[in-house]
Amino acid sequence: MKNVILASTSALFGEEYLTYLKPFISDLFAGLNEIVFIPYARPGGISHDDYTRKAAETFAALGITVKGLHTFNNPLNALQHARGVFTGGGNTFLLVKQLHDQELMNLLKEVVEKGTPYLGTSAGSNIGGINMQTTNDMPIVYPPDFGTMGLVPFNINAHYLDPSPQLKHNGETRETRIKEFHTQNTIPVVGLREGSWIRVKGDIITTEGLFDSRVFEQGKPPYEISPGTMLYFND
Amino acid sequence: MKNVILASTSALFGEEYLTYLKPFISDLFAGLNEIVFIPYARPGGISHDDYTRKAAETFAALGITVKGLHTFNNPLNALQHARGVFTGGGNTFLLVKQLHDQELMNLLKEVVEKGTPYLGTSAGSNIGGINMQTTNDMPIVYPPDFGTMGLVPFNINAHYLDPSPQLKHNGETRETRIKEFHTQNTIPVVGLREGSWIRVKGDIITTEGLFDSRVFEQGKPPYEISPGTMLYFND
Repeated sequence: MKNVILASTSALFGEEYLTYLKPFISDLFAGLNEIVFIPYARPGGISHDDYTRKAAETFAALGITVKGLHTFNNPLNALQHARGVFTGGGNTFLLVKQLHDQELMNLLKEVVEKGTPYLGTSAGSNIGGINMQTTNDMPIVYPPDFGTMGLVPFNINAHYLDPSPQLKHNGETRETRIKEFHTQNTIPVVGLREGSWIRVKGDIITTEGLFDSRVFEQGKPPYEISPGTMLYFND
Repeated sequence: MKNVILASTSALFGEEYLTYLKPFISDLFAGLNEIVFIPYARPGGISHDDYTRKAAETFAALGITVKGLHTFNNPLNALQHARGVFTGGGNTFLLVKQLHDQELMNLLKEVVEKGTPYLGTSAGSNIGGINMQTTNDMPIVYPPDFGTMGLVPFNINAHYLDPSPQLKHNGETRETRIKEFHTQNTIPVVGLREGSWIRVKGDIITTEGLFDSRVFEQGKPPYEISPGTMLYFND
């Protein structure tokens, strides 16, 4: 049974790493004393070791040991035997390139679909969607494929941001960018504001957290759904 | 002799299309009565025809007729015989995919390097850099290659935006994203604020316009340069 949290962000503004998610992480990883951490997204260019240390410090308070996937000689084997997996945020292009280059993307999908509990934040949540084509990140590397795990039948826009009326700037709003995506793609997109997440338990998918989420479907006006709403899309 | 303007944006906030650039466009395209417009970036998903019409209306006031590249049976031939070329903004992934799919990227580079005057705004400026890997755009399509024209020996970050102290949001700042780029790439990046542009005349490259520009080189703190500064980087 799938058991997944895909969170918009790892931290609320001004809060410590993962603080707001702790009760939900405890529920997701209940009974586990060790998980595998995927540090490949490297936020701000942080090293795999430093990033894993950061995650480990936070999980220590939950009684869970964290091992970085980069420390295993055989990462495929490590994922196959992982009790739980957490993929941290950072740059989605870097994360997706690493997972495809090491042929880990499909394997990760398989183990999560078979029931290994999975936590993603930001870039780690984007890869739970069908593809990474609604990321906000800069294309700092060229992945061999934009396809991701498809743990949910839609794409995620993490750190979803409403237009700011004060900002005198002509860069595209997030909504405009997603509208451009829908000129080329039919995949629905769920915009997750910081503090919200997707919860998957078996076949049940809900949005959770502090705020409404904004849903974008091709050819429809975007609409808001409140925390606790079940998500399903007709083909 | 190269004769190029690469502008951060097509319009200042609250202004009409291209207004602030008109005197500089008149200088760039002096003596021409017709140019070719590349509408492939499709801002907000606008059609090629509608986008070309928008550009044509603005250029009519300068006595210049605009023909959309998409209206030619043989776009390679059209670029080879163009008197001037303007590439409008929108989605850089869409623009770059179209130019590579139609094998127009290298040809465009050749004609501009031989002296055909070139105007780019936003996405149209990004393709004047070495590659598109410092775009802010969403990867709505998968280009076969991220390489662009390299009219200048650096990359451009259009619509460069300083961090906003009011914004309580954990998405990466532009500076953080460019820092992530430099964990993977050595190419310098020029962050062009809206209202600024790059001017290329032969081998002379300067920043121009209303604001300082922010330069990012791998392994150095970012720094500001004022309008009129010549740009060159030691290899």
